[in-house]
Amino acid sequence: MPRPCTVPPPVTSVLEAAGTWLPAGMAAVEERLAELTAGHGAALAGDAGATLAAGGKRLRPMLVLVCAGPGGGESAARAATAVELVHMATLVHDDVLDGAQLRRGEPTVAARSGRRRAVATGDLLFSRAFAELGANGGTRQVELLSATSVGLALGELAQRRDAYDTDISADRYLERCGLKTARLFECACLLGRAGKGSGDEPELASFGRGIGLAFQLLDDVLDVTGPPQRTGKARGTDLLDGTVTLPLIFAREEDPSLADVELRGLDEAGAESVCDGIAATGALDRVRALAREEVEDAKRALDEAPLSREERELLRLVADGVVERYS
Amino acid sequence: MPRPCTVPPPVTSVLEAAGTWLPAGMAAVEERLAELTAGHGAALAGDAGATLAAGGKRLRPMLVLVCAGPGGGESAARAATAVELVHMATLVHDDVLDGAQLRRGEPTVAARSGRRRAVATGDLLFSRAFAELGANGGTRQVELLSATSVGLALGELAQRRDAYDTDISADRYLERCGLKTARLFECACLLGRAGKGSGDEPELASFGRGIGLAFQLLDDVLDVTGPPQRTGKARGTDLLDGTVTLPLIFAREEDPSLADVELRGLDEAGAESVCDGIAATGALDRVRALAREEVEDAKRALDEAPLSREERELLRLVADGVVERYS
Repeated sequence: MPRPCTVPPPVTSVLEAAGTWLPAGMAAVEERLAELTAGHGAALAGDAGATLAAGGKRLRPMLVLVCAGPGGGESAARAATAVELVHMATLVHDDVLDGAQLRRGEPTVAARSGRRRAVATGDLLFSRAFAELGANGGTRQVELLSATSVGLALGELAQRRDAYDTDISADRYLERCGLKTARLFECACLLGRAGKGSGDEPELASFGRGIGLAFQLLDDVLDVTGPPQRTGKARGTDLLDGTVTLPLIFAREEDPSLADVELRGLDEAGAESVCDGIAATGALDRVRALAREEVEDAKRALDEAPLSREERELLRLVADGVVERYS
Repeated sequence: MPRPCTVPPPVTSVLEAAGTWLPAGMAAVEERLAELTAGHGAALAGDAGATLAAGGKRLRPMLVLVCAGPGGGESAARAATAVELVHMATLVHDDVLDGAQLRRGEPTVAARSGRRRAVATGDLLFSRAFAELGANGGTRQVELLSATSVGLALGELAQRRDAYDTDISADRYLERCGLKTARLFECACLLGRAGKGSGDEPELASFGRGIGLAFQLLDDVLDVTGPPQRTGKARGTDLLDGTVTLPLIFAREEDPSLADVELRGLDEAGAESVCDGIAATGALDRVRALAREEVEDAKRALDEAPLSREERELLRLVADGVVERYS
């Protein structure tokens, strides 16, 4: 498979709109991430370094920094680093779980170095995340990130339990997305706030959950539409892994033949053909519309949030970036 | 394989010697562990519950409680729970890494429910550990446990790097044990102290490291001697996994034929025969002697530690328990 063009980060507009504090903060996070992966010997440098260098949108650290605001300083950068480390850890572990070969167009740690090293590498990144928060002082951030990490793992367990079950409901799917994706976005917002306030602002929590959910919905659409050159993975990767997502759930309402698909033993050609079947219905547009609604609701939640005008404006731009990336 | 007799915990003597506060604290930890594994739905209850119910010596939580002393209360119980959760998480993940079928005579989570669920279950236990500390307030405990968890993962990565290399040195082996085992014992002691003091007492750190190292040395002897009815796993499990431990390193000095063993592709009969070869040298006695020395040094380190007479006496009994369990 040709190396895909890296999708440009959806966050350029945010960086341009912000004062110098935000690009400076993002640079500090990037430096810290590079330092941490280089500072543990060759094994981690190779494996986690590859995950790191493969890029990623750094949406979660950006949410931390924006919610912490211009005065966030080093403490905000550490929390932002922590949230990205947890995200990276889950990616590395998910790739062990999925047996995925490619991540962002690069070989996964599991494919590169074996499952054993991938499990340990994920554990290391995860531990480093809590070490960053420990250095910050205050326990609200530890509470937030650990509760979120519990959710991530429960989401993964739920996904395993649901695997190959083409009957699962939209509600069940949304519950899983809440645990697996939306909570880390919510956590990122509250982590930023915990450095300067209570870290318990319900409007910000809603905002984070909403854009996280939209992000996941659009990612699931992308798994169906591809193209692989853009996504860095084969179309229908979720199906091959037995994971039923909202596009299939909506599509099977229109095309009952999709309800009878046998996911076990599906090969790549079979997965592509199911993807074509889904795309032939109106399901993808319905999912995209739902994602846009979530983003609009999320932006409305910001109106009541205790934010400065600049912070509110920047968060709106982040929200738009989530949608634009996929449009 | 018949279900093994559970090795009696080496800690009975400690419980008997302590005031009621210690048995009460251990019971609180047990209750909390049961609660946490029951409180996350069927998946965790089944998998982590099995790991939990299979017992284990609970040496690490006991170290936390003893070091926290009679006034440790709920905060000490939470820290003790956290350290056992991290220990359980590493067991669950190690079994994924090793492809081990049995743990404490029971099927491992990986064998029972597949590697995918085992990775997620380990992540969940790990996250819950930090959630316990987050609830405690204060950041020294988070610092200690996260730095230790980084060490555990680095130790695992080092073990993977060294796999199948029969040339590795005793120093390299000891360094790995330091990361993989000794640090969590050290951390347990300091965690207990962090609730009432600095959590930075060098004598207690030495004590913890020493008994942790002895524990690992004796565990590695047991992997060679078995019997499986006692250990709950086949003899030579380490060898089958490509892990070279001190018994083989010492034995190859006496019997050069052992230096040429090809660990890749070794089968169970082959592993048993290497175990017999090791046992025929004086290596096992040398390793046992080294473990006893470590324990004696550890006990001496206590003389200077800022402890009450009762705490010091109890820690000495824990140290003796580590040796006695294997004698």
